[in-house]
Amino acid sequence: MAQASGMNDQLRVFAGRSNPDLTDEICGCLGIERSSLTISRYSNDNLSVQIDENVRERDTFVVQAFTEPASDRILELLITLDALRSASARRITAVIPYFSYARSDKKDAPRISIAGRLIADLLQTAGAHRVLTMDLHAEQVHGFFSIPVDHLTAIPIVADHIRKTCEMDNAVIVASDAGGAKRAGKFASRLSLPLAIIDKRRVSDTEVRQGHVVGDVRDKDAIVFEDEISTGGTMVETARTLTQAGVRRVIAGATHGVLVGNAIANMADPTIETLTVTNTVDVAADKRLDKMTVLSVAPLLAEAIRRIHTGESVGELFA
Amino acid sequence: MAQASGMNDQLRVFAGRSNPDLTDEICGCLGIERSSLTISRYSNDNLSVQIDENVRERDTFVVQAFTEPASDRILELLITLDALRSASARRITAVIPYFSYARSDKKDAPRISIAGRLIADLLQTAGAHRVLTMDLHAEQVHGFFSIPVDHLTAIPIVADHIRKTCEMDNAVIVASDAGGAKRAGKFASRLSLPLAIIDKRRVSDTEVRQGHVVGDVRDKDAIVFEDEISTGGTMVETARTLTQAGVRRVIAGATHGVLVGNAIANMADPTIETLTVTNTVDVAADKRLDKMTVLSVAPLLAEAIRRIHTGESVGELFA
Amino acid sequence: MAQASGMNDQLRVFAGRSNPDLTDEICGCLGIERSSLTISRYSNDNLSVQIDENVRERDTFVVQAFTEPASDRILELLITLDALRSASARRITAVIPYFSYARSDKKDAPRISIAGRLIADLLQTAGAHRVLTMDLHAEQVHGFFSIPVDHLTAIPIVADHIRKTCEMDNAVIVASDAGGAKRAGKFASRLSLPLAIIDKRRVSDTEVRQGHVVGDVRDKDAIVFEDEISTGGTMVETARTLTQAGVRRVIAGATHGVLVGNAIANMADPTIETLTVTNTVDVAADKRLDKMTVLSVAPLLAEAIRRIHTGESVGELFA
Amino acid sequence: MAQASGMNDQLRVFAGRSNPDLTDEICGCLGIERSSLTISRYSNDNLSVQIDENVRERDTFVVQAFTEPASDRILELLITLDALRSASARRITAVIPYFSYARSDKKDAPRISIAGRLIADLLQTAGAHRVLTMDLHAEQVHGFFSIPVDHLTAIPIVADHIRKTCEMDNAVIVASDAGGAKRAGKFASRLSLPLAIIDKRRVSDTEVRQGHVVGDVRDKDAIVFEDEISTGGTMVETARTLTQAGVRRVIAGATHGVLVGNAIANMADPTIETLTVTNTVDVAADKRLDKMTVLSVAPLLAEAIRRIHTGESVGELFA
Amino acid sequence: MAQASGMNDQLRVFAGRSNPDLTDEICGCLGIERSSLTISRYSNDNLSVQIDENVRERDTFVVQAFTEPASDRILELLITLDALRSASARRITAVIPYFSYARSDKKDAPRISIAGRLIADLLQTAGAHRVLTMDLHAEQVHGFFSIPVDHLTAIPIVADHIRKTCEMDNAVIVASDAGGAKRAGKFASRLSLPLAIIDKRRVSDTEVRQGHVVGDVRDKDAIVFEDEISTGGTMVETARTLTQAGVRRVIAGATHGVLVGNAIANMADPTIETLTVTNTVDVAADKRLDKMTVLSVAPLLAEAIRRIHTGESVGELFA
Amino acid sequence: MAQASGMNDQLRVFAGRSNPDLTDEICGCLGIERSSLTISRYSNDNLSVQIDENVRERDTFVVQAFTEPASDRILELLITLDALRSASARRITAVIPYFSYARSDKKDAPRISIAGRLIADLLQTAGAHRVLTMDLHAEQVHGFFSIPVDHLTAIPIVADHIRKTCEMDNAVIVASDAGGAKRAGKFASRLSLPLAIIDKRRVSDTEVRQGHVVGDVRDKDAIVFEDEISTGGTMVETARTLTQAGVRRVIAGATHGVLVGNAIANMADPTIETLTVTNTVDVAADKRLDKMTVLSVAPLLAEAIRRIHTGESVGELFA
Repeated sequence: MAQASGMNDQLRVFAGRSNPDLTDEICGCLGIERSSLTISRYSNDNLSVQIDENVRERDTFVVQAFTEPASDRILELLITLDALRSASARRITAVIPYFSYARSDKKDAPRISIAGRLIADLLQTAGAHRVLTMDLHAEQVHGFFSIPVDHLTAIPIVADHIRKTCEMDNAVIVASDAGGAKRAGKFASRLSLPLAIIDKRRVSDTEVRQGHVVGDVRDKDAIVFEDEISTGGTMVETARTLTQAGVRRVIAGATHGVLVGNAIANMADPTIETLTVTNTVDVAADKRLDKMTVLSVAPLLAEAIRRIHTGESVGELFA
Repeated sequence: MAQASGMNDQLRVFAGRSNPDLTDEICGCLGIERSSLTISRYSNDNLSVQIDENVRERDTFVVQAFTEPASDRILELLITLDALRSASARRITAVIPYFSYARSDKKDAPRISIAGRLIADLLQTAGAHRVLTMDLHAEQVHGFFSIPVDHLTAIPIVADHIRKTCEMDNAVIVASDAGGAKRAGKFASRLSLPLAIIDKRRVSDTEVRQGHVVGDVRDKDAIVFEDEISTGGTMVETARTLTQAGVRRVIAGATHGVLVGNAIANMADPTIETLTVTNTVDVAADKRLDKMTVLSVAPLLAEAIRRIHTGESVGELFA
Repeated sequence: MAQASGMNDQLRVFAGRSNPDLTDEICGCLGIERSSLTISRYSNDNLSVQIDENVRERDTFVVQAFTEPASDRILELLITLDALRSASARRITAVIPYFSYARSDKKDAPRISIAGRLIADLLQTAGAHRVLTMDLHAEQVHGFFSIPVDHLTAIPIVADHIRKTCEMDNAVIVASDAGGAKRAGKFASRLSLPLAIIDKRRVSDTEVRQGHVVGDVRDKDAIVFEDEISTGGTMVETARTLTQAGVRRVIAGATHGVLVGNAIANMADPTIETLTVTNTVDVAADKRLDKMTVLSVAPLLAEAIRRIHTGESVGELFA
Repeated sequence: MAQASGMNDQLRVFAGRSNPDLTDEICGCLGIERSSLTISRYSNDNLSVQIDENVRERDTFVVQAFTEPASDRILELLITLDALRSASARRITAVIPYFSYARSDKKDAPRISIAGRLIADLLQTAGAHRVLTMDLHAEQVHGFFSIPVDHLTAIPIVADHIRKTCEMDNAVIVASDAGGAKRAGKFASRLSLPLAIIDKRRVSDTEVRQGHVVGDVRDKDAIVFEDEISTGGTMVETARTLTQAGVRRVIAGATHGVLVGNAIANMADPTIETLTVTNTVDVAADKRLDKMTVLSVAPLLAEAIRRIHTGESVGELFA
Repeated sequence: MAQASGMNDQLRVFAGRSNPDLTDEICGCLGIERSSLTISRYSNDNLSVQIDENVRERDTFVVQAFTEPASDRILELLITLDALRSASARRITAVIPYFSYARSDKKDAPRISIAGRLIADLLQTAGAHRVLTMDLHAEQVHGFFSIPVDHLTAIPIVADHIRKTCEMDNAVIVASDAGGAKRAGKFASRLSLPLAIIDKRRVSDTEVRQGHVVGDVRDKDAIVFEDEISTGGTMVETARTLTQAGVRRVIAGATHGVLVGNAIANMADPTIETLTVTNTVDVAADKRLDKMTVLSVAPLLAEAIRRIHTGESVGELFA
Repeated sequence: MAQASGMNDQLRVFAGRSNPDLTDEICGCLGIERSSLTISRYSNDNLSVQIDENVRERDTFVVQAFTEPASDRILELLITLDALRSASARRITAVIPYFSYARSDKKDAPRISIAGRLIADLLQTAGAHRVLTMDLHAEQVHGFFSIPVDHLTAIPIVADHIRKTCEMDNAVIVASDAGGAKRAGKFASRLSLPLAIIDKRRVSDTEVRQGHVVGDVRDKDAIVFEDEISTGGTMVETARTLTQAGVRRVIAGATHGVLVGNAIANMADPTIETLTVTNTVDVAADKRLDKMTVLSVAPLLAEAIRRIHTGESVGELFA
């Protein structure tokens, strides 16, 4: 795949239906207007996408998170990529702030699909030359793509916010389970805090033993950071386990505030003191609890888009 | 792509969520049990598919129509195909009785996707070795696939039913518009009936002139056969135009009874005397008007599956 | 596939052997010299192509219509594309004014090739990045290509000529058969004329019933527009059917004046008053009947090439 | 690409138009009937191929040499392969007794195509799973294919015939030029004869110096073996050079008796005593000079097809 | 990719140079002879592989671990796969007991290769239809392959051995760092033991702070299980940290006993009581310390090969 | 594959570990600094490559010859290509001065790999857009690549040196065997010298008959030019055969001075008067015999890189 760097006026940023507000904010950072496309649905439920302006030889970006309804969001993106290719765009980058299928990253049961890899392949089939994404469930998912991927992280953004807004003197980072220990370890390193993990066991097929805290958490402020909070069931369970283990306060954070189902009720649980997420997933106004902070990743994504467009290093964003 | 024919006990037929009843009927014709898979949805709206039995070296078929919600149905199918491939199925055939995106078959506006081709490519990316489908919107859509396709038609089934149930002496086949003249012509040939078409014109961007009937229809019974009836808006408009032109009765037929939105209300219009569709799309019990007949394509699909499995000619099905 | 727009002096337009005159005319419109290549044939009948000038990083176009001898023309084009790729051309566009195999667009008999799709794949295998073509037999053939296609139409050119040179007051557009009703309908819309079609039936395997005119044609001037006129057998048969049905004059038109076999004798038939074609196919001087007008598509192709080269919208050519 | 061996009744051998007699002879060796396909040509010069019998799950072979008119022969083969794939053949082997484009095997001029590689890719694009061919111009051409190739040689057949029919006591093998020294060396080894070569030089762009014989040929019988004899110009020039150098008799041989243009007149030259070729290229009755022997490769090709079909070693054919 | 199951005598198992003893043991379990291939090296250091027996239509397996010298082992395997494909093997499975590049599974530094994905792609390019491997560094690496993978684990084999040979009453599973917590958690679940982890921090670019034990280990027997032990540096450091934290004994285990560099010296460290590995990597006789047990994975690999060959479920191996 | 020409400051030239000195010399000719990458090896023998500077949108070249240890050199190159692709380089050219596997260019034994083709495919899989190489063993190997190749030759450089340093009056060019006659013939043409060849025969599987000189060499100076000299065994054997045949002096030359094993001892043989090679392979100081001249190909490679970068003709380098 070969591209030439171009001038700024050739940059075109489009939004799928998942996240037009984030896209507008990105475009604001870039000092450009969001480009226009029209997504419609035929009576037989087929989706249709029309790019509303000439994109020949343009450097195009489409922002779409895989939020509910995820299948529609994915199909919209695939059809948009194909429309851009067919319209002779010079380069097509899928900007996927929340790549939900990254969670389907291994075969933990027989005869299933590693759907994260499948979706990566579908994006390429549909015409994506590149992907720009954030905080994939596992870092290895990067390797599912055969096209170049810029994989950003919101961890510094969330960590900085927590550092500034919470007392750090007596805090501990807690991983909800062994699988999350690595992410928690990185977070702990960044904040120079100790680490604890909750060791969960499955007793039988139907019964999961309540988790046991490994490490010292009594009378501490526990910071629990996940890649995503979906229904919040795990988070509230973790908070309760920690409270029982003598934790003083639970400070919750995540990159992706998916917040579906009972999430708002769960997050309202008094064991959780504050919740910090980002806008990789659009958090509707009626979901915004008082104790919730939604940080914007738009400046970060905008800067990455600018650097991809002009050929500057994206890695240096993290230096 | 190369396969060996196998013995009957290696045949496995699965159903997606669009059409389990049709699949059961197909399996009944084949004298086998429907094989089991489990489709579930995570809280973040990701789909998950597990094949419930060993399919190594088996000759597998998955039946899924692209009915509402179409994006979910397509993703389910893609993930199922990938799961079968990953589970080492010997051959994977996507049986798509209603391939809705066949309607996105050309670029009738600038900067759109020919999504029918895109979906064909996605099916191959996901692991399909073959496709078995019925009455694509245009015959050329067959050429969108680079894997072998068996393209069946329900026209003889519907035509035979109409011939048996309607008086043919005074009938005329009517195409709803110029684009449908070819299909109508074939139908007319089969029933040895004359042909008429409705010539529609777009007066301006917002106004479509009511159609003008070309050909002799006065005091005749008009048979209108479409590939699909979606909201039924076109069909009821056609029926009214024909009635105004002096047609005695309108006999409506289609392979795919998509029947969404106001379809049932539209079909209830008294200008339409009878409606004949097939079960390529599952027609819920509460949608079945008295004047509607739903013919089964299960025997036809079952026979095609049997022949694909054993290596007998499928073309001879039409001889 | 990604390209940068370049400066005009990087544009290179080559001609295959089908249509050097058209290519010269295109180059004249573009204000450039035709670039040189040498096609030769070894004694063992193998074709050989040499590009005669440096094309590294150039934006190259090769004009070749699939006219008789079609297999040689196709092989010449494929070898030329491969030579350009191997010579490091930046972008390679196959300009195919007449893509004859578009007629092989469906499986209307068992065990045949949809050769239009096959040729599309071969072009990509040989190195084409894009295709520029005109009036494909069916619009769906666009979807046979997985590389971007600009599909132009000569219908406005021919329609405008007919409008200017014929009396329109009493005219009707006639489709030669049901399959051509769609194209005829578009033509009729453009000229605001009524539509009629000829309904042809096959009585047995060997006998085709003479067509029956559907619609009102008596004492009218019938305009018959096809995508291509090959031997002209269909056109003269249509003209005779229309004359028997009381038509006053038959005005024939087509984008592609293939004109092989008995075409000139057929076209000389007095039932055909005038014939208008374009130079997508080179019409030799000795084939030019007095009643025949050959319109040039060179300005249209040149403008499309210019826009592809500079990244301007090609769709707006039709606005 | 994976195939299962099958039973003999699943073997199907088809002929393109280049060589039906050879194919019949092959089928005779195999004890089967030649399978039927129909190749026709539309009035616009498009080729059309229909497979006349069911080939689902069959192990299919198509015999086609790339003889004059080569472009038609290649297109016929490509369309036949695609038709077989589309008709669900289990395995498709292109049997190409004479792969003429093997001569386009290197870039001996700037900006040309290595067309031998291109044709290899086109065969795969069109659906070939395997190739069976004979005496490619250079052994390296085997590596142009990414599908398995069985590359047979007729050298033993021709060498044995020459050994039996010519006096070997006083013979020498002569290579026509340095490029042919390797093939001549192999031939010389097989017959245990000495080797000589003709050293040709190009004096200027327009003038080629007559060759100079390197090695001892005076009063000997010179055996000149080429991969192909096309117009025979090189052979007769070689024969004359050898005669001038005191050679007693020239015995000419080649696998591929292409024999076009002035070939028969050239071969009639009295300096050439006998000519031995095979029927990889069909030699018409009127081309058969008295001094010419046409040996059949049918038994060899039939045995290779049988072994490919049943999974026996083809390499052992040469042991 | 489609294959038919075959009879046992068509199964062929080859060994690369990494692990002929393991292969012989596998073949012993399968009741077959190891098939023969010859690997040689030209004077210019090019590798050459010849398959010594006919493999047409056979179901072939090649056993090769990526042990030192890893680049040679990988090239040997790639060339062997290509030779099998070219020799018309029906199906080719790369059996890679130790896929070392699985450790290159993410971009933990800018501008590096995710070489695990690259090697997966190279295997497919070279002709592998399937992969059979064991205990990949991360489960997500499975998703790097687009061909079917059977991913076995030796954890039960090692865990059972430890359970039988060590006192479990007072044991704890310890993860060497946060990244290994997930694997350790699984191991702990299987043995119903508590979990602890070592929290390591990097103080500066050059200094790594010694790890801090999270969880209760004092006076316990610590079981440390890794996917691979290479130089053993991490293991001995872990053992010392644990000893300082009051652990009574350290019981070390790993699937892959890579054991290079100072490994034997490191493992001899008295803080390590026993070491259990498997023979996925060949452990030379002179590396076998008294406290080391090498368990065989041959029965497991043989059973998997048998099931792949006959089409039985491999997943059930784990049930 | 499409690229835009860029400005000189976007050119980046990297070196693998085979030939940093040559690369520095190339960069000197280009007036740029060599760009930096770091190749390291993990304890488990896995290679790791990090590109040390931003290469987004840059036009990148990596110089790596396939010298001993060849497998490491190839893996290093493949991983570097993948790292460059993943780091978003605009264009990636593999500069392979010595492509050793070109010698594996045909199937001269059953069931082997044509490894030259395999390596060509692996380079493309790993991300190479182009290849720049020198004096491939056979010209046909060019056709193994499906990406553009610039194939340079050092023959003029070596020939000019020999012409200037040796007496030409009494010289003859000798091919070591029939397979080398073509290359020798070209060399002879360039120097306007006569040609002789050594005819070697294999008497039995274990015994090769000493070669017999074909042509006139007595009392002459024999120039023997090979593409590569590996152990030099063939060259010293040739020199002795020629000496026995009365040759006065043997002047040896080759593009690739691989010089492994006993090469230096062999080359020291007094029958060889002088040896001329180039630095496509790095010749260590301790291998440089007094009679050996190492010519630099750096100016030639640098000029080719400059022209590839700016889009000037590379073919004209040879005009």
